[in-house]
Amino acid sequence: MKIGFVGLGAMGHAMAERLLDAGHELTVHNRTPAKADDLVARGAVFAQTPAQVAAGADVVFSMLFDDATTEFAVFGPEGIAQSLPAGAIHACCSTISLDQAKRLRDGHAKRGQSYASANVLGRPPAAIAGELFVILGGQDETLSRLKSVVTAFGPKIFVAGNDPVQANLAKLSLNFMIMSTIEQMAEVFALNEKAGTLPSTMFEIMTGSFYNAPVHKNYGKLMVEGTYDTPGAPVTLGLKDTEMFLDAGHTYQVPLPYASIARDRFLAAMAAGDSERDFVVLLERVRQDAGLR
Amino acid sequence: MKIGFVGLGAMGHAMAERLLDAGHELTVHNRTPAKADDLVARGAVFAQTPAQVAAGADVVFSMLFDDATTEFAVFGPEGIAQSLPAGAIHACCSTISLDQAKRLRDGHAKRGQSYASANVLGRPPAAIAGELFVILGGQDETLSRLKSVVTAFGPKIFVAGNDPVQANLAKLSLNFMIMSTIEQMAEVFALNEKAGTLPSTMFEIMTGSFYNAPVHKNYGKLMVEGTYDTPGAPVTLGLKDTEMFLDAGHTYQVPLPYASIARDRFLAAMAAGDSERDFVVLLERVRQDAGLR
Amino acid sequence: MKIGFVGLGAMGHAMAERLLDAGHELTVHNRTPAKADDLVARGAVFAQTPAQVAAGADVVFSMLFDDATTEFAVFGPEGIAQSLPAGAIHACCSTISLDQAKRLRDGHAKRGQSYASANVLGRPPAAIAGELFVILGGQDETLSRLKSVVTAFGPKIFVAGNDPVQANLAKLSLNFMIMSTIEQMAEVFALNEKAGTLPSTMFEIMTGSFYNAPVHKNYGKLMVEGTYDTPGAPVTLGLKDTEMFLDAGHTYQVPLPYASIARDRFLAAMAAGDSERDFVVLLERVRQDAGLR
Amino acid sequence: MKIGFVGLGAMGHAMAERLLDAGHELTVHNRTPAKADDLVARGAVFAQTPAQVAAGADVVFSMLFDDATTEFAVFGPEGIAQSLPAGAIHACCSTISLDQAKRLRDGHAKRGQSYASANVLGRPPAAIAGELFVILGGQDETLSRLKSVVTAFGPKIFVAGNDPVQANLAKLSLNFMIMSTIEQMAEVFALNEKAGTLPSTMFEIMTGSFYNAPVHKNYGKLMVEGTYDTPGAPVTLGLKDTEMFLDAGHTYQVPLPYASIARDRFLAAMAAGDSERDFVVLLERVRQDAGLR
Repeated sequence: MKIGFVGLGAMGHAMAERLLDAGHELTVHNRTPAKADDLVARGAVFAQTPAQVAAGADVVFSMLFDDATTEFAVFGPEGIAQSLPAGAIHACCSTISLDQAKRLRDGHAKRGQSYASANVLGRPPAAIAGELFVILGGQDETLSRLKSVVTAFGPKIFVAGNDPVQANLAKLSLNFMIMSTIEQMAEVFALNEKAGTLPSTMFEIMTGSFYNAPVHKNYGKLMVEGTYDTPGAPVTLGLKDTEMFLDAGHTYQVPLPYASIARDRFLAAMAAGDSERDFVVLLERVRQDAGLR
Repeated sequence: MKIGFVGLGAMGHAMAERLLDAGHELTVHNRTPAKADDLVARGAVFAQTPAQVAAGADVVFSMLFDDATTEFAVFGPEGIAQSLPAGAIHACCSTISLDQAKRLRDGHAKRGQSYASANVLGRPPAAIAGELFVILGGQDETLSRLKSVVTAFGPKIFVAGNDPVQANLAKLSLNFMIMSTIEQMAEVFALNEKAGTLPSTMFEIMTGSFYNAPVHKNYGKLMVEGTYDTPGAPVTLGLKDTEMFLDAGHTYQVPLPYASIARDRFLAAMAAGDSERDFVVLLERVRQDAGLR
Repeated sequence: MKIGFVGLGAMGHAMAERLLDAGHELTVHNRTPAKADDLVARGAVFAQTPAQVAAGADVVFSMLFDDATTEFAVFGPEGIAQSLPAGAIHACCSTISLDQAKRLRDGHAKRGQSYASANVLGRPPAAIAGELFVILGGQDETLSRLKSVVTAFGPKIFVAGNDPVQANLAKLSLNFMIMSTIEQMAEVFALNEKAGTLPSTMFEIMTGSFYNAPVHKNYGKLMVEGTYDTPGAPVTLGLKDTEMFLDAGHTYQVPLPYASIARDRFLAAMAAGDSERDFVVLLERVRQDAGLR
Repeated sequence: MKIGFVGLGAMGHAMAERLLDAGHELTVHNRTPAKADDLVARGAVFAQTPAQVAAGADVVFSMLFDDATTEFAVFGPEGIAQSLPAGAIHACCSTISLDQAKRLRDGHAKRGQSYASANVLGRPPAAIAGELFVILGGQDETLSRLKSVVTAFGPKIFVAGNDPVQANLAKLSLNFMIMSTIEQMAEVFALNEKAGTLPSTMFEIMTGSFYNAPVHKNYGKLMVEGTYDTPGAPVTLGLKDTEMFLDAGHTYQVPLPYASIARDRFLAAMAAGDSERDFVVLLERVRQDAGLR
């Protein structure tokens, strides 16, 4: 199929590569063109604008940093929506707010264009390995066409619902589960540390028993090792995601006390000068409250 | 070895059975003697008092409901401490408060007796299958003798530290991780439900991706199915465990905001008349706050 | 002096009237012109646009509903900023977000215009009686000219600082103190009610001892009487103000747990169908959590 | 009347003095007898035991530090209950847990003795000046006799209800209002400080407008001045009172999120080494979370 891809950050680049591996005809765009060089060397075409990516494509993926960059790449003067053909699909993979997700859904609908959310779960190494989890939201007909393409990203594909926004909310929810698991483990680590039991011992007990999911292992390991300075995701991003989840709570009128506490921890981390460190650094705020160090 | 076992509830009975299976010579005691009938039929001896269980034993396990029953069975007039031989070990498996754990530790020490915490993780079916996780706390010499016995309960044995209390705190911590995971999943279920995505769909996405630990699968399943009335553990027990964890926070001066919120949910559940339902019913309080039902 | 006033809601109208009483020459504007009729009858001039209000004025007050209406009335095509004379002052009295306050400050500064925040505390009856509290923020020179005018609103004038935004934050803070006092009293009322002591008795004890500020008396009285349906301010407004306070916490990186809990109560109130009731109705959420009714 | 008084700490001594001033015949007891010297010089009789205080009295007051000291002075081997005459009243003024309050109520009832709670609000200087607030709980007949005596403590007497425990809960509730007002003001102070507005300015605005109750003025002043080291009441006492309030929430099944947050602040203050400083020091924990200092 003719596939377009807009946004070649660490995630987007790996996903684009997987599409090439799967044998698709690929056109890409990125603000910094050099990021596309190796893809072009492998046969991809570089387009100067998102609109040019979309022209003639069957499916266009966008994987951008946030609401604003997504809005611009889709509905800006040379955006995807300018040229997305009838019958083609725009599938947005970015983690964005529900308000932005609704703007995408409604903006495409007004233009008679097909749109879906195709949120992905996993960090760049998983993207490279084709082991992302994909959460789709959209009309059945759209998703049925999309599924065969997104299998390139990973073997597990979930459908949240027929409203694209449902996939965005599911994605924000899963990110919230990371943040709240970190707070949960941080409370356990700090308390046991004060009783003389090392975090590494508690980590071994947790992950050796009922708490052995990737969320426990991956983030718990970073916490135990104090790996704060080669951030997979910085505190600022943790805060952004948590606030989007809380905003969803506002939209749907749902109190979310665990999310509020995670938000407070991230604010305290920023106030302590840790904005750019890995967001597992919130452990240090829990330890500080406990008088450790 | 000559093993004693005091307390034959669902957990204790299954553990005692495993000790018989392992070929140990077993003496048991239970307030309601009938619970021991099948064990006696298999060769165990029934003793009239905990003191008689302890007399002549190499290791005595106690697995009782709470602080008060444990205190009585150990230091009461016919308690284990009355007759525990020099060189023998009392290993307490109950989930008790840190204060009670300290009383056991110090009371045995004053009498020159060996004592260890041997907390177990898992529900009765796991106990029957010999698949419990065991968390030990005690002096190295004591634990080295104890380990070969507790392998009867399950293959995974952890050592929290040389203070028995460390094992008790680890156990309370793991229970807290259950409660806080339930609150975490409840917030996700309620929010997505209001956006039109069924809890069962979210459960599938969670457990199909990074949140696939037993804690997610076991409790999430009960929540999704609304299995509230055949309680594995009722709200009252959830509250008791959460308050013991919070008390540990007092002892070690550690703020534990997630635990406080779990406590509030359990109180609200009791106020709503759900004291005796499975503690996953706290989902209903999160749903009520969200205006669902 | 020549005074302009934009926004004649219940508060603005009363404040405009006080300026007439004080002998100022008044030009007013309101989207619904009829609201100005009695003021015009007393000598005020009605202008068709905010820009016309500002032309020739010494001081222009704006008292509008929110960020958007304020932005439009100030920087819109026929806004105050179009024609505010050099040497004149725009004083904004609205309760707005800090971001909006900064836009006003910076937008006027770019145009070389004088700007101040003049937030007021009190409900319409206090405005009519000239008993508002006024919180000013702005340059000393600007405030020194402004003070003689705002005495018309009330005898007590406070200066938060030389940055107008400081007054806006002070105002948001005082509103937060209302919300958090309501939650505080609600917890006391619900708990004592379950112990058999009526809220009215607790109210009498509170306000008869150390808790006798207007914030206790005014809101406590509404709570005790269950006066939810003639809202001074509805839940939606309580939520808006609380979220602006929380946003300020984001801006300055300050965790605000009491504000987060108030936010959750307002969301729960909306989910329960109480959006348009007086925001003291959050008592009912606390009572519901306690199993009352 | 013949009055007995047990417990001559700063509060008790001042209250005993007021009873002398009112012309009552007074017998007193204190663990450290020297504290009674000046009262004896003024005509009071010193008794060697609480039992001797009670013998022959019409009303015996107790004002002791906590549950344990109260229990011992009342039901210990030489306690008040040993000799309290039929028709006499024991009125307990201590701030104690509800469980202890129930033990007093039920223990006296079993002995056919009259009992009331007579909680007082105010610090020692107010006690000396006879300006305490008194909250009574007990049977009408008991209270009608007690009222004429407690007017010696202060002019304002409240009746919480016919169950003595209601007065104890009211007292714990009012103490909670102190703690939660401190947290509330601390959030305001920290946030505005980061925006450049001094706590002293915010204090002036608060107490000059709607937040001018003694609770705001007294504690706000200590916070603004950073008066942490001449404690009226230390962090340990703040924590004790807050936990008794939370325990009441357990008893009556009422979630109390503001109290839980206050508890966490006190624990963090203790972890930071501030156990013996005035409990307004919790401001420093809010400031630390905000990155101040």
